[in-house]
Amino acid sequence: MDREEWLIKEEGYDGEKTADNGNRFFLGNGYMGVRGTLSEFTKEDLCAVNLAGIYDKVGDGWREPLNAPNFLYTELFAGAPLNVKTAPFEEHSLILDFYSGILRRKTVFLVDNKRISYTCERFPDMKDPHFFYECSEVESDREVELSVKTGIDLDVWDINGPHYVRFEENCKEGRLLEVTGFTAEDREFVRVSSSVSVFSPEETALSFENRDKKLLSTATVLLRPGEKLKICKVSHVFTSKDGKEGKDDRPSSSKEAYARAREEHIAWWEEAWDRSKVLIEGDKEAMRALNYSLYHLHSIAPRHRKSMSIPARGLSGQTYKGAVFWDTEMFILDFFLFTEPEVARTLIKYRLDTLPGAKKKAADYGYSGAFYAWESQEGGFDACSDYNVTDVFTKRPMRTYFKDKQVHISAAVVYGIRRYLEATGDMSILAEGAFETVTECALFYYSLLLKRAGGDRYEIRDVIGPDEYHERVNNNFYTNMMARMVFLEALELFDRVNLLPADKRASILEKYDIDALRNTFRQAAEELFIPSPGEDGVIRQFDGYFSLEDVSVETVRSRLLDPKEYWGGAYGVASDTRVIKQADVATALALFHDSYEKSVLNANYNFYEPRTEHGSSLSACMYALLACYCGRADEAYPFFLKSASADIKGGGKQWAGLVYIGGTHPASEGGAYMNVLRGFAGIEIKNGELTATPKLPGNIERLVFKIVFRGKRYKVTVEKGREEAILEPCG
Amino acid sequence: MDREEWLIKEEGYDGEKTADNGNRFFLGNGYMGVRGTLSEFTKEDLCAVNLAGIYDKVGDGWREPLNAPNFLYTELFAGAPLNVKTAPFEEHSLILDFYSGILRRKTVFLVDNKRISYTCERFPDMKDPHFFYECSEVESDREVELSVKTGIDLDVWDINGPHYVRFEENCKEGRLLEVTGFTAEDREFVRVSSSVSVFSPEETALSFENRDKKLLSTATVLLRPGEKLKICKVSHVFTSKDGKEGKDDRPSSSKEAYARAREEHIAWWEEAWDRSKVLIEGDKEAMRALNYSLYHLHSIAPRHRKSMSIPARGLSGQTYKGAVFWDTEMFILDFFLFTEPEVARTLIKYRLDTLPGAKKKAADYGYSGAFYAWESQEGGFDACSDYNVTDVFTKRPMRTYFKDKQVHISAAVVYGIRRYLEATGDMSILAEGAFETVTECALFYYSLLLKRAGGDRYEIRDVIGPDEYHERVNNNFYTNMMARMVFLEALELFDRVNLLPADKRASILEKYDIDALRNTFRQAAEELFIPSPGEDGVIRQFDGYFSLEDVSVETVRSRLLDPKEYWGGAYGVASDTRVIKQADVATALALFHDSYEKSVLNANYNFYEPRTEHGSSLSACMYALLACYCGRADEAYPFFLKSASADIKGGGKQWAGLVYIGGTHPASEGGAYMNVLRGFAGIEIKNGELTATPKLPGNIERLVFKIVFRGKRYKVTVEKGREEAILEPCG
Repeated sequence: MDREEWLIKEEGYDGEKTADNGNRFFLGNGYMGVRGTLSEFTKEDLCAVNLAGIYDKVGDGWREPLNAPNFLYTELFAGAPLNVKTAPFEEHSLILDFYSGILRRKTVFLVDNKRISYTCERFPDMKDPHFFYECSEVESDREVELSVKTGIDLDVWDINGPHYVRFEENCKEGRLLEVTGFTAEDREFVRVSSSVSVFSPEETALSFENRDKKLLSTATVLLRPGEKLKICKVSHVFTSKDGKEGKDDRPSSSKEAYARAREEHIAWWEEAWDRSKVLIEGDKEAMRALNYSLYHLHSIAPRHRKSMSIPARGLSGQTYKGAVFWDTEMFILDFFLFTEPEVARTLIKYRLDTLPGAKKKAADYGYSGAFYAWESQEGGFDACSDYNVTDVFTKRPMRTYFKDKQVHISAAVVYGIRRYLEATGDMSILAEGAFETVTECALFYYSLLLKRAGGDRYEIRDVIGPDEYHERVNNNFYTNMMARMVFLEALELFDRVNLLPADKRASILEKYDIDALRNTFRQAAEELFIPSPGEDGVIRQFDGYFSLEDVSVETVRSRLLDPKEYWGGAYGVASDTRVIKQADVATALALFHDSYEKSVLNANYNFYEPRTEHGSSLSACMYALLACYCGRADEAYPFFLKSASADIKGGGKQWAGLVYIGGTHPASEGGAYMNVLRGFAGIEIKNGELTATPKLPGNIERLVFKIVFRGKRYKVTVEKGREEAILEPCG
Repeated sequence: MDREEWLIKEEGYDGEKTADNGNRFFLGNGYMGVRGTLSEFTKEDLCAVNLAGIYDKVGDGWREPLNAPNFLYTELFAGAPLNVKTAPFEEHSLILDFYSGILRRKTVFLVDNKRISYTCERFPDMKDPHFFYECSEVESDREVELSVKTGIDLDVWDINGPHYVRFEENCKEGRLLEVTGFTAEDREFVRVSSSVSVFSPEETALSFENRDKKLLSTATVLLRPGEKLKICKVSHVFTSKDGKEGKDDRPSSSKEAYARAREEHIAWWEEAWDRSKVLIEGDKEAMRALNYSLYHLHSIAPRHRKSMSIPARGLSGQTYKGAVFWDTEMFILDFFLFTEPEVARTLIKYRLDTLPGAKKKAADYGYSGAFYAWESQEGGFDACSDYNVTDVFTKRPMRTYFKDKQVHISAAVVYGIRRYLEATGDMSILAEGAFETVTECALFYYSLLLKRAGGDRYEIRDVIGPDEYHERVNNNFYTNMMARMVFLEALELFDRVNLLPADKRASILEKYDIDALRNTFRQAAEELFIPSPGEDGVIRQFDGYFSLEDVSVETVRSRLLDPKEYWGGAYGVASDTRVIKQADVATALALFHDSYEKSVLNANYNFYEPRTEHGSSLSACMYALLACYCGRADEAYPFFLKSASADIKGGGKQWAGLVYIGGTHPASEGGAYMNVLRGFAGIEIKNGELTATPKLPGNIERLVFKIVFRGKRYKVTVEKGREEAILEPCG
């Protein structure tokens, strides 16, 4: 294994890349996400220490996760500020070692005829995720008086801020800074403490400075050629969400503490890769991109809690309000299910624990059961607005229906539970809320069912499927398939009611009339209208889809009057055409491929793929998966690679007007993993057993990765030319 | 009765008023509508001889009624063209005598120091509506050589034309011009012939000239002071729609023929007013406005056919495609029902005869029964487009749902049938299609009914009610009330099946399982959800209405970025507010006032009226009617007057961009009559009997008018201070 392949490098400095690099050089440990910015950067450069699961709302702005006061801030001065934005430099590079989860930076400044080298490495502690470590070294080829100021920048970058209405500082000595920021909405607090040590080469006394909203430990030292100035900075974050369980430790920046933490951090990653890395022989690019994606998933996994989920942009910032979407269950879950089921359990538990919020949402809309939040924050609060898009022509907010009509979200939750039960065999979640969650989701879909007078089938009307360009449609194939799956899953669980502990079982049986519900859901599943393939095998995405204008994606694009205008909504360029934003029928067929003839899978792939804009990062991996089930792995490959490369390539849309919408793409990352697992390796769970029917694309020689299934680990080997995968028990 | 009050006068010439005057000085006889333009005008001045019930479509343009070749065209030349647009004049006036249905024009030109007076009167024959008469006189105070050219202008004004692809001329002699225009779509033809006689003072020979798309009879005469030049022109129109029944007579322009026709025309109007005029003592303005409205209704009534209806803009032009809307049954019908039931029968018969079109439309949308056209042309063809509004910002067509979701149209048809049966007692229409029409409309609504799984009520979802600013709503109160009325009316007719002639009864019983349908419709009527008044008495217009923003009409207006932008649709300024375009709940309560407490009527009037933009001419009269039922006739009065004055005042919106959308407002005219009949006089039909509970506004001393009820005429007198109306049998 070539460790060079596990490095992300960027040479030189280009201010235009700052937003993008913030994501590409991301560090995180599930508790905090730290954007890949430089020490001398401030909020203008989108520095962020993004915190998981703690939110605030200011005025009419969107409710979004908090960024901690920026403990990365450091300024060096040697006659001039040592800042890549202003000072000449000979060399500047950023290297993310994503095998070890460490970011390194090196800059050689040229100031007053001196070559001053500044190197820095940093990592968020994977063992105790409240901690963040940074160690820098400065050398000069000539004697120089160097001023060091490092500490906490209280001028935090926010999209809908400022969130802190008050700071309490506690910086009695120069080497330990501490600040607590308080929010207005819920009186949350975020406490950041940074321990700073400066060795030059002996430990140097530090003084405290409070300037321009910055709390700084400062020292001025004379640095001679051959000497190294070393700055150790260990920061600690503690928030009101950590309650009594969280440890409110003071950090220590001793060299020994730093070295120990570093060693343990590297060991953690070594172990993580042992169980999760994917070797792809014959395709270095794909292997690098996929494992880089997995690095991101590891970095945002909530291991410090038992009930928490992953936002749609991970911990890369406040984009999409730090909210949890269907992305988690439908795209991200598989990776954790098969490499670290404890994390999968935590993700599922988040949904079980937010059932009350989902029931409230259902009731608010006049439905029964549980209607999960489209954009879920703590407690299942739906952060989604009724107005998600701004009309580029009028600058007015446009009424969108993501929140109220994208009803397939509850089915995603049930799908996640089903996958969890299948893959882990861990039935304990049934007693921890899964039984009620599935039942309430089934009740929700039941309350959506409509039957025409005198009719004999149930319909689901006025919804949005995965393809958001077509709003308020009837009988979306994906939605109806998923709703039926929910009814069937509820029936499955009813058969398992005896697995529940006695007291739980008693309370369930008191709460639900299982026998009556069994009949209800069975009838619902039987009578729910599922559109059939036409003579050509194609299944219409929703009622009336085939009467829409049949034009190419390019034609639709050519009709844009403004490159930023919304393709969907009531009057978008795609709305009255067959052009769709993302995999919709294809997603349903990828999930339920077993229920359809291969000819039907092929017909729909052939029909829908050319009509798909792929305007969502959730699209490519579903087409990749469907292509594999069609037996067309070579066609799946570019979609897989696109999905795997979503973040390593960077780029993508970073700004909508003046609002930052960039960030990382966990669903794409997880989708790429699904492609390998379910598509290329062809791993399925059938009747509680693992099966594998590989479909390797031509350029891949060999796939090797480990999975865990029902408590046992297996090494999976898929080789070109071999019809079956090798599953060897291991570890 | 002061005949001065029956004149509409306009002095002077103002080109800006041409479009408006075309409507105010309108002449018509149900077969043709002739806009009130001048003889020297051409298509730039919106001259039109609009024909009833004959349509054509060119390319992708809207299908619209034909205008005949313009037989009004006349040019006079006396050294200079005698044209108000270019020649100086001393006097110019237009006078419409709407008591006699004659338009007079007088212009005194000042040319070369000569005062040349030109007077002209014209009228469309009410007895034989193929004919149109015009007689002009010219005098000069000095000798003048006068050139007269009069004939047929083939350069026809069209909105979506040109409709004639070919003309055949037949003008062998100067005094008889004839031209036949042929359309492409259906190969329809329109033949216009004009007989011209010029007396100076003796009859003068005429020659023929074909110039600039004009067929002209020409003469040049020397006119001396004290002499009169007289031009008699009688025109005749015959179309392919007149089939064999229509008489294809040659017109005669002899003085005798003209005088005889004029006498009969005046007598016709005298008789018409005898049975239909409304005397309003104490309020000349209201009386004048109302009778002027009735003049329009008389002028567009289809008396030459047994099955024809009235377009939404009458015969004033091609606006709204000459299509028939719900306006006819809900607003216009009453006037004819109570003054000329034969015309009411013709209007109803049009719907009975277009049942196949309505059944086809229902089937096309996947419904059962009869879904009448929102914009009905011949055969019930729905001329309504899926795109009725242009986005002012993008200039793109906007998807509207008038055609597919304004389902209350079929109930309007049934309502008309019900009113007809009630008011005339003429059951013969049952055998002529009314039985099937009502049954098929009930079947249509039945197929719209949806029941939630496990629910106990039927709902009607995804519709537009009368208020078009709120699209795709569920359980619109008006729609559901009307649908229930349809079920109940069907049940009524089922009880009358024995009134049908034996053979018709047999075929009906073969076609429909009446006993089964009786159960079906009874259950539908019982279980259909009808929203109840809240504690405050207010009934919500549709599900979720009360959660919309509660702002004033003025606030909504102030949010317009462009004065021409559409208030409704998905993103209009009114769409997410409680501001409505027109009476909606108010219309339902006006129609079904007997079913609700007066406190409920009042609560809804108080709630909805201030939230109504009155952006439709169908709004005011419904609020007037409801105000009367609330016992608030004084508040009804301004709405009544607004409705009655819609056309006499003129003005209003004439243009949408470059498209002419002006015209007359038959629904407003008919609505004003309904206000007098049902509101102020309080006439109702209860159990087959006439009752009258007057509610006179304070400024009206006495109302006198005649009505016909079940074949008998009554004189109705309502007097201030008397609680009851006097109904005296008469004639």
